[in-house]
Amino acid sequence: MFNYRIRDLVKSNIRNLRGYEAREVPCRIKLDANESPYGLREWDCRKIARLLRAVKTNRYPDPGAEELKRAAGKTFGVSPDSILTGNGSDELIYYLTITFGGPVLYPVPTFSMYGIIAQALGEQSVEIPLDRAFDIEIERMLKAVKRESPKLIFLSSPNNPTGNCFSVDRIMRIIEKTKGIVIVDEAYQPFSSKKGFLPLLGDYKNLAIMRTMSKVGLAGLRVGFLIADAEIISEVNKVRLPFNLNSISQAIAVEALKDKGRLDSNIKKIISERGRIYKEMGAMSGIEPFPSEANFILFKVRDPEGVYNSLLKKGILVRDMSSIIKGCLRVTVGRPAENTAFLKALKEAVSDL
Amino acid sequence: MFNYRIRDLVKSNIRNLRGYEAREVPCRIKLDANESPYGLREWDCRKIARLLRAVKTNRYPDPGAEELKRAAGKTFGVSPDSILTGNGSDELIYYLTITFGGPVLYPVPTFSMYGIIAQALGEQSVEIPLDRAFDIEIERMLKAVKRESPKLIFLSSPNNPTGNCFSVDRIMRIIEKTKGIVIVDEAYQPFSSKKGFLPLLGDYKNLAIMRTMSKVGLAGLRVGFLIADAEIISEVNKVRLPFNLNSISQAIAVEALKDKGRLDSNIKKIISERGRIYKEMGAMSGIEPFPSEANFILFKVRDPEGVYNSLLKKGILVRDMSSIIKGCLRVTVGRPAENTAFLKALKEAVSDL
Repeated sequence: MFNYRIRDLVKSNIRNLRGYEAREVPCRIKLDANESPYGLREWDCRKIARLLRAVKTNRYPDPGAEELKRAAGKTFGVSPDSILTGNGSDELIYYLTITFGGPVLYPVPTFSMYGIIAQALGEQSVEIPLDRAFDIEIERMLKAVKRESPKLIFLSSPNNPTGNCFSVDRIMRIIEKTKGIVIVDEAYQPFSSKKGFLPLLGDYKNLAIMRTMSKVGLAGLRVGFLIADAEIISEVNKVRLPFNLNSISQAIAVEALKDKGRLDSNIKKIISERGRIYKEMGAMSGIEPFPSEANFILFKVRDPEGVYNSLLKKGILVRDMSSIIKGCLRVTVGRPAENTAFLKALKEAVSDL
Repeated sequence: MFNYRIRDLVKSNIRNLRGYEAREVPCRIKLDANESPYGLREWDCRKIARLLRAVKTNRYPDPGAEELKRAAGKTFGVSPDSILTGNGSDELIYYLTITFGGPVLYPVPTFSMYGIIAQALGEQSVEIPLDRAFDIEIERMLKAVKRESPKLIFLSSPNNPTGNCFSVDRIMRIIEKTKGIVIVDEAYQPFSSKKGFLPLLGDYKNLAIMRTMSKVGLAGLRVGFLIADAEIISEVNKVRLPFNLNSISQAIAVEALKDKGRLDSNIKKIISERGRIYKEMGAMSGIEPFPSEANFILFKVRDPEGVYNSLLKKGILVRDMSSIIKGCLRVTVGRPAENTAFLKALKEAVSDL
């Protein structure tokens, strides 16, 4: 007879694991999750409906996502053999960590899933604080590379939640000094003025890049890409679930990638709005925005909790980052009218408090 | 400088892992993958199109899949707290194995992912052959339970690829004798004449059940359910990716579950056709079909490779199981006209050879 607590049965590394918290907070203007304000609804709905009627939902999806990899290959300028598709980049982080194991090294603060997944899999993670400019503290990082021999190094650039790109020469030194795989997570690269790492793929066998459709209008579909040497792809592919990417997401993502004009125009609008928000925030007293290469802006206020609550009272949801970076909130760039409402509410919040 | 082979970097358990093979074989009549012949295209397309327009694809999906869990809770007669949704059952097997670890015990032959995932995660798996009636060899199984103290026991019932349900009393003895979690994988339960294990959930804390929408018309959407004590759900939920189930699959699955009449009528058609195929196969000389509680039939022929190729030449794809069960092929129940074509081609194949 079973008379144990389930808790005593789980692996010890799971016992104290706290998963990623994704709470749904009711709001009118949602600027908390680095989503694009422009989604499928902006497109030709009839075209999508036709597309969906052609998808045989009773059949398993294409296990190799071949059509999607061809479309993504064109977008990224790489061969489809260099691409692995994931149910979001999250899943690719899982697969990388399952394949190579730990230690897993990354600077902090950064995207929290690198650490959560390492813990879920019982792999050691090593966190190195960023410097005061939110750049990689290169000497400490290289020391950690030497000391820990990490199997995986995750570098989110542009980095979430700080918004900046890490210095290219620091990333290069890490790639050159490590025996492990360096994954540059370029989730926010479409919004960056800096060159990404795709052109360097051929030169560095241990360089891998992650891209996603989550920040450019398709977060709900869960489509992420790992781009790397075919040998890395082939090893990670062994642990991939054969049908990890559903047919409808495959079909819509193909159409979205082909409609490059639409994607690019939405990205341009967001970059332009980011400039406006940054400038207007900078002109407010009591607000210190940090420059951003992403679709969000990190900013410092005297009373983050007060400002957060004041914004929420007006129906505007941002992300409170103050437990991770002192005094900081993070706002995602929305539609122009949403951004205007945010700026107005922010101005009122700081003058009220 | 990186001068290693990627292969030398991967974890040792991955090095010799061969993933699940999902090859796409061109064919006219696809009866190889235990899919339903009835998909979304049978439904009201306008309704689906309206549904999809309402999905905000630019937003992350509901992390808790709350509406889907409510609909599934009604279908299965359990509380939403007892449900975890997965990107197919495959993903739930990953999460269970990550949470509890090994040894992982299961009878063979069975669904291959239990073993593949255990190996991917470096966990020990223990395989116990079924008896000659494809039922659980209970004494050997209980000895393995005692000797190995498995953390997880997977019992696919109805079992794939044999088609039969395991004896309820044998499953019950395993549940009562183990300190681990017993997962009854009921992927094919909708097609079974036997009672499933859902009514026993309240009585056995270490009993978990898996269900899926993949066999009832939505394989392409990847929607699986783990149903168990809330304490099990809560532990496994810690390792779940927060956005593992995309919004469109959530929305369509909710509609499908609500349209119970349609689901049930398709299931009835498949059960009725299964009866016809079984009877007609049984009447053919040189064919030995095994009774089935699932949406497929395992059958023995003298020359499985010859029969497989002869069917494929006529455009009919079945699954060759002969490397796992001597002399056996597996055919999925299709639409009536597809089944008739299959039976005709099979008759010709065995008389030709």
